[in-house]
Amino acid sequence: MAGLIAHGRGEAFDYILGERTTPSAEEAITAAAAALLVAEHPVLSVNGNVAALCANELVELARATDAKLEVNLFHRLPGRETAIEMALKEAGAEEVLGVGKEASARIDEVYSERRRVDPRGILVADTVFVPLEDGDRTEGLVRMGKTVIAVDLNPLSRTAQFATITIVDNVVRAMPLLISEAKRLKILSKEMLRSIVSEFDNRNILADAMRKMEGRLHELSEKGVYIEPHV
Amino acid sequence: MAGLIAHGRGEAFDYILGERTTPSAEEAITAAAAALLVAEHPVLSVNGNVAALCANELVELARATDAKLEVNLFHRLPGRETAIEMALKEAGAEEVLGVGKEASARIDEVYSERRRVDPRGILVADTVFVPLEDGDRTEGLVRMGKTVIAVDLNPLSRTAQFATITIVDNVVRAMPLLISEAKRLKILSKEMLRSIVSEFDNRNILADAMRKMEGRLHELSEKGVYIEPHV
Repeated sequence: MAGLIAHGRGEAFDYILGERTTPSAEEAITAAAAALLVAEHPVLSVNGNVAALCANELVELARATDAKLEVNLFHRLPGRETAIEMALKEAGAEEVLGVGKEASARIDEVYSERRRVDPRGILVADTVFVPLEDGDRTEGLVRMGKTVIAVDLNPLSRTAQFATITIVDNVVRAMPLLISEAKRLKILSKEMLRSIVSEFDNRNILADAMRKMEGRLHELSEKGVYIEPHV
Repeated sequence: MAGLIAHGRGEAFDYILGERTTPSAEEAITAAAAALLVAEHPVLSVNGNVAALCANELVELARATDAKLEVNLFHRLPGRETAIEMALKEAGAEEVLGVGKEASARIDEVYSERRRVDPRGILVADTVFVPLEDGDRTEGLVRMGKTVIAVDLNPLSRTAQFATITIVDNVVRAMPLLISEAKRLKILSKEMLRSIVSEFDNRNILADAMRKMEGRLHELSEKGVYIEPHV
């Protein structure tokens, strides 16, 4: 139920953004691809919404960046973890971390059940990709010193604000772009990838997303009523 | 499920608005109270979300404006109508229209199951209050020549755009204000109430809501990052 409400919030922000990937989101996607490629232990964290929206793309991204896939849920109800594991395996994943007893490690900085993580995955990761994640979780991972890549349509959210790299875009549009960027950048040296990441300024990216929304609202507010019923 | 997603969209717009009732929303609330008081056959249309959020206030508003309450659902599944009827009756409603076979009339202009309305209610109403309604329905009622009062946090939505009077506010904040306005204005003559309604300009109200959101995004975009993790 929380996932459906979160989906609705995303829809609203996407609506204001104009349902397009902006140039600043593309910049964040490039930095995210570089960060995943340069990482020692990159992990893609998967919850129910993300698994439902783009299981195939997650598996492809994991392959393109040598990242591990880890199921990470707010509500660890029986059956939910294995349902997500199944969705990823059907999409071609060979290994899925974080299921059942494998999520045996605890992260003190993160509240809720999601403090349970896999000791082979998020616990030891230096870079974690957390699409559609919440603020507590993102904050916890950042405080542990990890590079956190978020996908969030709301540039005002705690997730967007706390992450190292925030892709303000619809995850369904962003994932294919992220995969193609990872493939494109794969030939670069670690040094070049590192410089892409270090030159990236998340503050600018967030400000730009807010300006985009602001601009669109400004445009529409000139009219007030901009669509009419079909009389 | 659609209701939960819609709730999430509302949350997002409320977040941008600053989770406060704006002066222009107050103006729309005053016009809405006047429109309900001056109507010959005012009807309050009730769906699942509204019943869950403010059943007591709906009953009180119906009493304050001599309006009828009518259950009106997108999905008329068995049990849902009666659950809403029960919620309203527990809140003190004496009569609830639109339940079961009583929703025998059809409105051709409105798509989906909601074209089924009560011949004693929405069908003959001159003014319909549709909090948290969708665009098709609102458009249909407007095309039938009815005065339509909507509550919608998204000033860009088709509902907000099509309605005669749009209250861009959280329904939980708006309902008590609407009730107190109805009680305050009740002593006015029909003529004075009519002039409040005719002087109301929904285009301005919508433009103002968009400008409010735009202004808040502008403020925040100056900073980009405006909250930091607790390190």
